[in-house]
Amino acid sequence: MRIALDAMGGDFGPRVTVPGAVAASEQIDGEVLLVGNPEAILASASRDLPSNVRIVPASDIIEMGEEPATAVRRKRDSSLVVAANLVRSSEADAFVSAGNTGAAAAAAHLFWKCIPGVSRPAIATIIPSRRERFVLLDSGAMPDATVRNLLEFAVMGAAYAEAVLGIRSPSIALLNIGEEPGKGNNLTKEAYKVFCANLPNFIGNIEGKSLFDGNADVVVCDAFVGNVLLKTAEGLGAFVMEMFRESVPKNPILRLPLLLLRKGLEDMKRKMDYAEIGGAPLLGVNGICFICHGHSDERAIRNALLNAHRGYAGHLTDLIAKRAAALGGEASA
Amino acid sequence: MRIALDAMGGDFGPRVTVPGAVAASEQIDGEVLLVGNPEAILASASRDLPSNVRIVPASDIIEMGEEPATAVRRKRDSSLVVAANLVRSSEADAFVSAGNTGAAAAAAHLFWKCIPGVSRPAIATIIPSRRERFVLLDSGAMPDATVRNLLEFAVMGAAYAEAVLGIRSPSIALLNIGEEPGKGNNLTKEAYKVFCANLPNFIGNIEGKSLFDGNADVVVCDAFVGNVLLKTAEGLGAFVMEMFRESVPKNPILRLPLLLLRKGLEDMKRKMDYAEIGGAPLLGVNGICFICHGHSDERAIRNALLNAHRGYAGHLTDLIAKRAAALGGEASA
Repeated sequence: MRIALDAMGGDFGPRVTVPGAVAASEQIDGEVLLVGNPEAILASASRDLPSNVRIVPASDIIEMGEEPATAVRRKRDSSLVVAANLVRSSEADAFVSAGNTGAAAAAAHLFWKCIPGVSRPAIATIIPSRRERFVLLDSGAMPDATVRNLLEFAVMGAAYAEAVLGIRSPSIALLNIGEEPGKGNNLTKEAYKVFCANLPNFIGNIEGKSLFDGNADVVVCDAFVGNVLLKTAEGLGAFVMEMFRESVPKNPILRLPLLLLRKGLEDMKRKMDYAEIGGAPLLGVNGICFICHGHSDERAIRNALLNAHRGYAGHLTDLIAKRAAALGGEASA
Repeated sequence: MRIALDAMGGDFGPRVTVPGAVAASEQIDGEVLLVGNPEAILASASRDLPSNVRIVPASDIIEMGEEPATAVRRKRDSSLVVAANLVRSSEADAFVSAGNTGAAAAAAHLFWKCIPGVSRPAIATIIPSRRERFVLLDSGAMPDATVRNLLEFAVMGAAYAEAVLGIRSPSIALLNIGEEPGKGNNLTKEAYKVFCANLPNFIGNIEGKSLFDGNADVVVCDAFVGNVLLKTAEGLGAFVMEMFRESVPKNPILRLPLLLLRKGLEDMKRKMDYAEIGGAPLLGVNGICFICHGHSDERAIRNALLNAHRGYAGHLTDLIAKRAAALGGEASA
């Protein structure tokens, strides 16, 4: 199998994508295609590239701030677009980018289209929990989901949990503002009924305060809610760490004990740092696509490549296609 | 002025409501009416009640788990219903309860109705920020807000920030999934335009990650989003504290430094503990209503009573009525 990596994407470009690809190549049964400026890529390689890491030239770059759809349409020779197109033309089996998130999602959606039976792709994010972790989707940027969309998200999230995370028979919950069946807004009240009728592993509504208990493996919500939830968690995490630092005595001698706790604090920060987990998949498109945070480091890139490899080896796309077909009914826009 | 306190409400009932009322009575220019079982109330008083704390008997209690609307309709002599009714009959000017949140909101809404020009009440929650704090609304349980509802929430939240929190000319932001004007779901895209046209202090969209910077004094959202946000923050806070504790060395000697940090940790926890701030107002109803967490302690009850006092002294209800009338247009259900 081959993974097309947008080598120019992310805040650090080839400086992290190249070593990330080299590190992943040792564990991948296949090739990593580094798509981008060959000089810049070679300048970031500390030694000769391994035999299963190959450069595919692309002359242009999509910047982080560009309007996604326009950038994807205009910059046909950008590393992001060329990498996504390698999957369309079957020259690669998966696409990984730490570049402009919207552009990466738009390219995969536009070029590959959705899997038959899937109306709309969704981004799934992994969040640590008391048990281990859960998958939250949709955490992308296409709000105003329909009940049908949510049902497909549930099926796609479960397929991802199985094929990539190795969770057998993952449990599915609906993010809601009460646990009882009748609770929620118009969307979740209706979705609750449809989930009950279609998803054997549906365990019911889940509230924000119980998310981190980890009783659900897959948590489904509209992208607006998922996006607000993730960004608020990110903002709150940073704020809490800052308050903690400020709450420590100012006197340097009294601060010494903190050094002993540093490792613990760093462990905690790492556990909370979703980026390290290795990219978020765009599920529902006709191919494997992992999107990484812009600030991804070498390890995050490596992990995303390994996840893409797992997705391919676990037949993620086929699994979603099979499950979506089994849903029956109409895919809705 | 008189404040009717549901003395039986909350997880601890008179054990915390009575000392909370006594503590507040010293700072209130008026009376606190302790509504509930006289024997239970007197048993919780460590000495004679102050002259401005009076008992109003009520024989029944609404439990935390009861269905709000049904409980309010059936239990006419419950402490919660009697206390809310004292405001309807003008025997009291404000109502405070740490009981069943839904029942307290339902009683105030049902008995007092909405202020003219207000379509729907909203619960406002205070959240700490890097600057100091901001008001988030609606954090209640009535989702599927319209654009008009959000506009009224903005006006009500600003009135509360002025009259109770003493913030002059509070800035207003719309919680959204991007900062640019075109971002969001159908509701927030439309609300953005209406806010621009109607709210001079509107500073634009705000994302979850920027909430804690405190640049906005009032943040407006649909109740579904507000509810998920608050409960997720609560769940995440508890999870982080737990991970922190686990990350500390297990060896008792190595744990000693933690004792030095305990004060700092407690400060932080207190700052994050919204309950301590003193109840959340139900805005938009025809009277002053503060609802406290069920687990409120004596201090939280005292603070809620003082906030109710501030709301009355600051003419909160009149201010909302004036601002809602100035909006023009139709109040929508």
